[in-house]
Amino acid sequence: MNTPVPVPVNPLHKAGLIDRQWSPRVIAELNDYQFKVVRIEGEFIWHDHPETDEAFIVLDGTLRIDFEHGPVYVAPGELFVVPRGISHRTAAEGEARLLMIEPRGVLNTGHEGGERTATNDVWI
Amino acid sequence: MNTPVPVPVNPLHKAGLIDRQWSPRVIAELNDYQFKVVRIEGEFIWHDHPETDEAFIVLDGTLRIDFEHGPVYVAPGELFVVPRGISHRTAAEGEARLLMIEPRGVLNTGHEGGERTATNDVWI
Repeated sequence: MNTPVPVPVNPLHKAGLIDRQWSPRVIAELNDYQFKVVRIEGEFIWHDHPETDEAFIVLDGTLRIDFEHGPVYVAPGELFVVPRGISHRTAAEGEARLLMIEPRGVLNTGHEGGERTATNDVWI
Repeated sequence: MNTPVPVPVNPLHKAGLIDRQWSPRVIAELNDYQFKVVRIEGEFIWHDHPETDEAFIVLDGTLRIDFEHGPVYVAPGELFVVPRGISHRTAAEGEARLLMIEPRGVLNTGHEGGERTATNDVWI
């Protein structure tokens, strides 16, 4: 779903259009990678992605990523790459809005599945 | 060059550390993709990347991308993906600071070469 005439997109604006938290929405593609925006609040489930790294850019709020060795805090404007195969849990005290970059087809819960698995490949 | 313990990086801060314009510096990797920051001012050369799309996120200033059909202006906080094979020229009136995402090994001048080709794969 490439647009024929590319236009700039504003990830923070796009994130504000999402009606639910924890539901990533695709805003652009780069080869077989996707840019997704998501609103999060509270704690996600522990999971990992054995096949891929996963990049987060914080648009608004503070992202906490829990690792086995402790939490990492990512501030607005900062970039963080979760290495493949590393168990992690995303979280935010108040709402955080994030831009994610990862290969098309990656599920938010990795291989954990369950009720928190979001429908994939939904554009906004 | 993956760091053993990942830490958040601030692309705008990293861009401010670069001592020259038009010299992309790598700040993070995502699988075989690289996040690069660059300071630009004035006009680059026309080129294309036949093998890959190229993503820009504007950190500061305004990015102008000239296409054969006319210019596109990308504001701070906006994301723009240049499709593969499309001839384009990046430009900025004053200085602009950009975050770029593209596969490792992509040269800034595509296959045009010449004196404006930057050394690749330099980290900051």
